[in-house]
Amino acid sequence: MMQVPILKMNDVLIVTLGNDITDDEAIAIKHNILVKIKETECQGLLIDISVVDLIDSFMGRILNEIAEMAKLMGSRTAITGMSPQVAITMIELGLKLQGVYTALTVEKGFEWLRNPNTGA
Amino acid sequence: MMQVPILKMNDVLIVTLGNDITDDEAIAIKHNILVKIKETECQGLLIDISVVDLIDSFMGRILNEIAEMAKLMGSRTAITGMSPQVAITMIELGLKLQGVYTALTVEKGFEWLRNPNTGA
Repeated sequence: MMQVPILKMNDVLIVTLGNDITDDEAIAIKHNILVKIKETECQGLLIDISVVDLIDSFMGRILNEIAEMAKLMGSRTAITGMSPQVAITMIELGLKLQGVYTALTVEKGFEWLRNPNTGA
Repeated sequence: MMQVPILKMNDVLIVTLGNDITDDEAIAIKHNILVKIKETECQGLLIDISVVDLIDSFMGRILNEIAEMAKLMGSRTAITGMSPQVAITMIELGLKLQGVYTALTVEKGFEWLRNPNTGA
């Protein structure tokens, strides 16, 4: 099973999702992120999906769940680099990523996680 | 083939290497990083290997090459999160990563890439 590295930079965890993530891997990623949030007591979670060009309903739901669960654990979520295709799919699936800050670049997402009052 | 995402944050490219990278993948990663350096004109390259617990001579050489090539293109390299096993292997293989800043945390590597005078 592919292991997705989780980087910690200051108070923010950075996860970069690749293509072709299986359902089992998605569940493992969700679990690992939550464990890492607890472990590092970080306040922000940045998920970069700029290389993802296709998302299915399962992965979309997992993204939504990660954000909701991270929020319960006191961590804000930003999703960056969404491609047009993925945005179309997310809306068609009815997944609006409520409470999640979305931005095209990692810089903007990171900036928002550190200073939430500056945008979104 | 596994695609390794390359994040751009400010002037720095961030690459996180996973385990079980094949030789072909390592070559592809090297190529993609160099293309991205040219594309983004970034000044720093951060390679996080904190989840890598085993490195072979080929991957060690590739890491060395990436740093040397990036330098020719005007980009400094920092490698972060090296495990004891990997450090042992690197020295036993005679790979000293000259001109590369190494640090245990991503924060330190990132900080150095932005202000090279503060350490190393």
